[in-house]
Order: sequence, then C-alpha cells, then structure tokens
Amino acid sequence: MSKKFYLHEDRMPKSYYNILADLPVPLPPVLHPGTRQPVGPADLEPLFPMDLIMQEVSTERYIEIPERVREAYRIFRPSPLIRATGLEKALGTPAKIYYKYEGVSPTGSHKPNTAIPQAYYNALAGVKKLTTETGAGQWGSALSFAGAMFGLEVDVFMVRVSYEQKPYRKAMIETFGGSVTPSPSTRTKAGRKILAEDPDSPGSLGIAISEAVEAAVQSPDTKYSLGSVLNHVLMHQTIIGNEALLQFDDAGDYPEIVIGCTGGGSNFAGFIFPFLGERLRGGRSVRVIAVEPAACPSLTKGVYAYDFGDTVQLTPLVKMHTLGSSFIPPAIHSGGLRYHGMAPIVSHLKELNLLEARAEQQLDCFAAGVQFSRTEGIIPAPEATHAIKAAIDEALVCKETGESKVIAFNLCGHGYFDMQSYMNYFAGKIDNMDYPEELINKALVDIPAV
Amino acid sequence: MSKKFYLHEDRMPKSYYNILADLPVPLPPVLHPGTRQPVGPADLEPLFPMDLIMQEVSTERYIEIPERVREAYRIFRPSPLIRATGLEKALGTPAKIYYKYEGVSPTGSHKPNTAIPQAYYNALAGVKKLTTETGAGQWGSALSFAGAMFGLEVDVFMVRVSYEQKPYRKAMIETFGGSVTPSPSTRTKAGRKILAEDPDSPGSLGIAISEAVEAAVQSPDTKYSLGSVLNHVLMHQTIIGNEALLQFDDAGDYPEIVIGCTGGGSNFAGFIFPFLGERLRGGRSVRVIAVEPAACPSLTKGVYAYDFGDTVQLTPLVKMHTLGSSFIPPAIHSGGLRYHGMAPIVSHLKELNLLEARAEQQLDCFAAGVQFSRTEGIIPAPEATHAIKAAIDEALVCKETGESKVIAFNLCGHGYFDMQSYMNYFAGKIDNMDYPEELINKALVDIPAV
Repeated sequence: MSKKFYLHEDRMPKSYYNILADLPVPLPPVLHPGTRQPVGPADLEPLFPMDLIMQEVSTERYIEIPERVREAYRIFRPSPLIRATGLEKALGTPAKIYYKYEGVSPTGSHKPNTAIPQAYYNALAGVKKLTTETGAGQWGSALSFAGAMFGLEVDVFMVRVSYEQKPYRKAMIETFGGSVTPSPSTRTKAGRKILAEDPDSPGSLGIAISEAVEAAVQSPDTKYSLGSVLNHVLMHQTIIGNEALLQFDDAGDYPEIVIGCTGGGSNFAGFIFPFLGERLRGGRSVRVIAVEPAACPSLTKGVYAYDFGDTVQLTPLVKMHTLGSSFIPPAIHSGGLRYHGMAPIVSHLKELNLLEARAEQQLDCFAAGVQFSRTEGIIPAPEATHAIKAAIDEALVCKETGESKVIAFNLCGHGYFDMQSYMNYFAGKIDNMDYPEELINKALVDIPAV
Repeated sequence: MSKKFYLHEDRMPKSYYNILADLPVPLPPVLHPGTRQPVGPADLEPLFPMDLIMQEVSTERYIEIPERVREAYRIFRPSPLIRATGLEKALGTPAKIYYKYEGVSPTGSHKPNTAIPQAYYNALAGVKKLTTETGAGQWGSALSFAGAMFGLEVDVFMVRVSYEQKPYRKAMIETFGGSVTPSPSTRTKAGRKILAEDPDSPGSLGIAISEAVEAAVQSPDTKYSLGSVLNHVLMHQTIIGNEALLQFDDAGDYPEIVIGCTGGGSNFAGFIFPFLGERLRGGRSVRVIAVEPAACPSLTKGVYAYDFGDTVQLTPLVKMHTLGSSFIPPAIHSGGLRYHGMAPIVSHLKELNLLEARAEQQLDCFAAGVQFSRTEGIIPAPEATHAIKAAIDEALVCKETGESKVIAFNLCGHGYFDMQSYMNYFAGKIDNMDYPEELINKALVDIPAV
C-alpha cells in the first residue's frame, strides 16, 4: 500500500480551472466604490496588468498555464498527495484520510501558486516592480520568491507589529531578494496620515494595503499584487486540486468529503473547486467543508452583503460574507485566517448551499495539529490545523458508523515559522477565543447600504 | 527535461551499505579508555542494544532494513534528487549540478535516517527510554520524532546556551513528545559537578554527552543514542546514497564529483559511501570532496590519532582526525559542523587518499546559500551551504574548461530554523573565522599518547 502519491512533473496539469464557467447562478458584479456601478477592466488597469484583469472576469472553464510559469512551478510542484496512515491508525478509524501537502513550496505554503503567475504576467507587461502588503509574512515571502524568478523588484509593506515580532519571515523575504518596509511608514500619504494621528501605530493589514496600493499607482512601471480573495488568485490555486484529481486516479480512490480552512479563501478554493466542478458538471458527488476560526467567523456568522475589501474603505465593493471592514479580528495564532471578509466566489457557493461551513476553537485545532505531527511527521501551520480538526472529526464519525469513507483535506502549509505558537500551546498560554459578538455587531454597522 | 527525480516508495532500497566490507585496509580498532585494548561488544552493552552493537562491528556489505523501519521511512523517503537547473543557468556553467534533498524529513535534516532504526532496535530490545544530547537541536528533534514512532520516551540533554537561545528546536522536540533538560543540570553527578564549579555554565556538547550517558546507565530499561560518528550511524545514512544511485539511473547520468559537508561525518558518509563503494569494487570512478568549516578544520588541519569522542574524556578511544577533545570550536553558524573530531571511517578514507578535503569560510558559504535560495527556491541550512560552495566552485571550473561534468552534492537540511543566521548575514554581522591556530595547538597537546 502506498502512502505518498507523487505526480511526475510531465503530468503536471497544463491549465487552471475556472469555476465561474460552471456556476448555476452567476457571481454578483464588483461595484465601483464611488459610482456603485459595476467596474470594467479599465478601472483596474492602474493596479493590475491586463492579462490578470482578463483572468479576473473570464468565464472560460480552463485557462492555460504558460510554459514559463510551469517551469517555475517545477521547482516544487506537483506537490504530494499523502495517505495519512499514521493518523488513521492512531484514531482507529475505518475512514481513509488523504492530504495534499502544499508545505513543500519554497516559502512553505500554497501562496507561491499565485505569486508565480502574477509575477510572470507583470513581467510580460513590462512591469519592473510589484508592491504588496503582508501580515505575518507568508504572502510577502511568496511574492519575493516569485519576483526573483522573473527579475522583478518586490516592495513589501509589512504590518509593523509583525515586522517587529516575526523577524524570520522578514529575513526570508530578504533572502529571496525582496525589500520590506514596516507599515505604517512615512513613504506614503496614507502612512503619514496614520502616523500623524498615532506615531506608535502597530499597523494593520488594511493600512498596509492602502500603502501598497498608493505606492503602486505612483509609478508607471509598478503594479500591485494581492494574495487571496480575487477570482484570478483563487483560480491560480486550482493547480492544487487539478493535481489531486490525477493523484486520486493513481490511488484508485475518490474523496467523498473534501475539507479546507478558510481565511480569504484561496487555499480552500484551490484544493476544492476542481472536485466541486466535477460535481457541478454532473460528476461524482462530494461533500465540501470550509473550516474557519471561531474568533473570525465570516462564513458562519457574517452577513452576505456588498462590502469593502480593506479597512480604510478604498477598494471596490464586493458581495461577500463579511464581519464588517472595520472589524479587527482577535489575535489568534492563525494569522492567515484573520480577515473580515471571504472571497466572493466562496461566499456565493455558500449562498447556493454548495458547501458547509463550520467554526473551530484554536485549542481544539492545536490539539489536532499535535496529534497530526506525532503520527504523520509534519508540524502543520496553525491555519492548516483547522482543516485537520475537521478531518479528524469526520474520521471519528466513520469510527462510530463503521463507514470507510474517503476524506481529503488541504494541508496548506508547515508550521516551522510558527513554533512560538506551539511553545505557547504547550506552556498553557493559549486560550480559546469566543465569537467576538460585540466587536462584530459594532463592525457590521459600517457595512454600506448598497 | 526533468528537474526532480522522485523514486516511488516501492523502489526504496531494502538494505544499508556497509563500506567496511570494501575497504582496502581495515579500520583501526576502537580502544577501551582504561585498558587501551580493543573493546568487545560486551563493553558497549550498557549503552546500546546488541543489534546496533553488531551493526557497529559488522563487515557484511549489505544490512537489511527492517520492514517497520521502512514503514517509518515512507513518511518522507525516498527523498528527491533534484537537478539544479536554476543554479546552473545563473552560473552559466556547462556542468550538470544535482542535489539530494534531505530537508523533506519531519525535522528538516538527514538525522531521522538513523534516529528511526536506532529507536526501532531499542524498542525491539525492550528499552523504554532513550537519552541523548543535542546542541542546536537537530539531533534531539529527530530522536524525539523517532521515539514517537516506536513508543519510546526520549530524554534530551540540550546545551544550556542553545536551550535559551534556540527555543524553537526545543518546541519541536516537545511537539513530537520528547522532553528537554538544559545541560548542565542537577539530574546527574556530571552536571552537578560542573554546576558546583560554575553555576552559570553555558554547557557544551561534551558535558551534555556525559549527562546523557550517565542518565542512561542509571536505569536498566534506558539506553543511550548518538547522532553521528559511529559506524552504524553512518551506515544508516547510506539510504541516501543508495536511493541516489537508483535516481541517477532514472536521470541517465552518473556523478563524476560527489560532495558533502562534514561535521561528525554522517550526512557526508550517507550520500557518498554507496558511490565510493562502487568505485572500490572496480566500478565507475568518482571524485569525492569533503567540505568543512575553516573554523573547525579537523580533516584539513587535525592530526590522525587515537582520541576521545567527548570533552570530558569518558568515551572509548577512536582513531580519527582530531583537533583535540578539549578544543571548543568558535561559534560559527553551522552548529552541526562544530565537532573536534571526525568519524573514524571518514578519517580512514582520508588517510587512504580516497577523498579530498577542503575548508571554507562562512561568509563565502552564506553567499553561496543565498544564490542557491534565489535560484532553487530552498533556503539551505548553514551546514549545507558548505557543500553548495564547493559545488559552485567545481561548476565554475567547468565553465572555464568548457567541460559538462556531472556534479552532485547532499543538501542535508533546510534553513527554516536558521533565519537568525541569515538575518545576521544580511545585516553584515557575520565575519569569517580564521583557523584558530592557537586554540587548536593548545588542544592538540591533550591528545593521549596511545
């Protein structure tokens, strides 16, 4: 019995999958923040190259992956599909558990899957520099690596509190050749405004986005890059699920339950959309589970409404599950899941009852992560432990019922840069964080009436 | 053209290679520290289970890998052989550069290759607990993981200064279920003696070895485990080179130059002995290069003599290249290469002119590591950058001569736990450390006359 399913690089999928082609109901349009009318491609041109804008609005089912992108992917892709035999044995479940492991990438998560094509299309358009924001640093390091592949400068605005508390991700960005500015900074009008009000501002993702956008539009050969939420970003991630479909063929199995953790939605979408697409086109049925943190429960507790993508309310309005753009999530250890909204496509699928969502507490997730480490030999990122928790729960249901279901989840990254979180967990310094009802109710008020 | 050569787990080698079977001159015997007579298996029984002792002295060419060890190996093995196309392109060399990547293991280095069989044979012998020492934590975390696989307690004495400065490796040991004691400790006579002399002692590997050995012999169901130097440890590592032989078959190539970094000698031996064995048995010729740090140059500047393995001079005497057991290497960033001696087999091969040794400065090695990161997408452990440096140098020689030689090196681990070193490098805070002639001359005096 094989444990690992490697796909030879010659069999790496040649196209992304675009779920917009198979939706039973079209996605609501993106609205201009000023006019509240649907935006057109030209509105986005100051920020993105036209190839990416066309991908954002395309309804073609398959979009070809350029050869130079495939060449860069071959550094780490295809990623393995692994049968969790050690975990199955420890649980005593008749279920078969599989996971797709994205921690093999240069920066240890799924983020390079979109950083690479974004850098490629920008380089193709003659762009010299990309600006972006990063919280804990996963996205900034991925874009920095991608920039090194295609000869682009990468200029990362990193939330100041993370810049100070998480210097190793900053070091990784620099190792790959990118530069890092703690945000808020004096480099932009937005940053100077915040600093004038609060010279000791710890920064936020919302502020860093404002600075990165402002820095991009200042220069004609500079564009902006985003690591989640947008349609084209989610589509780039479908390389994960497209590979997994082939790997399940090799394994002679097909998942009955697919699971992903959700922050902005990109790793979830990337793993799950190719399976869900088969179902939407009349193929095999699959149950889809999205797992989010109890402290930032956009899918399970948010409202479905038009809202801003950033805290300072500069972006276009998108229809999504949101906790309100002024909601600052509690400081849980899964930094990558601390976002007030959810990708419009994922939100839309929730409204169409095509996925189940559940929220988990971080103590339960860490316990699941430790059990996984000891049985499978990979220390997962705190974000990924949410998916592990749900997979274990479903496997334990199988133990009750005696069913040997096939359960699959996306292990979106390793936890080698999150050992402080594990130390806190072992020291008993991590608490559950309940649904922050009061904070959310306050933030929900700020959602614009559209 | 393929970049990565994965071996299907069904083709994972079924035996280790024992180079003692093919040596043109036998290895000098190990001597008892008291009698100065060759030790017998019974002398080692308080520390190791008999299966491992018999492996230590065996001259059989192939030793079978037990199925349960192979099952645990399948969590991460076979490891990939990767063609460094990005690095080749950046160097503009006609050489073909390959590397075997051991960073895919649960703890990010080659160390689990021996931790797993050591834990297995101890469990088979009814041992309940293993004690060991660790410096920066690579070995301690590997043995902790292996203990989790076979239900053994793992009790790690960690050099106090590392325990305080490198808490993340400690967290990894605990995540896998091991326990950690900062050394010197009050748990042992050796530790209490040191603390009585110096309550603020920062500890050393030599002291930690003494404590681990003492803790092991105190209890009948407890044994001791070592992560390098010994014959059986090097032999377990040959799974690396045995896999690489099959992978080079798949690639349709064969290395003309094989390179490894050397501290105690285990990753070097594991990658290189299977190739060297083919040469010794009349097979294809291969040039062998061992790369050590200029600050701890046992192979290039040490003497070949009987010496102790530990600083407190309790271990048996082995014939090796040594800088003297009282030599404390300068605090270079390659913690895994800071050992006063060299594995007896590697030393013996050097005396037989079967390998070339060279010493490199750490600034040059970091520069090579950064170039590798940006072109190959893997941030290497500082130890591994020594092998990269030599591979680049050989590839640049090929650029001069126009030869397209096949060069292969062992990338023994990733650098995700060494980002502080990279930060120091980028901040200009890393200096070269010259050959510490005065210190070594002082230590050489302590080598016993045998």
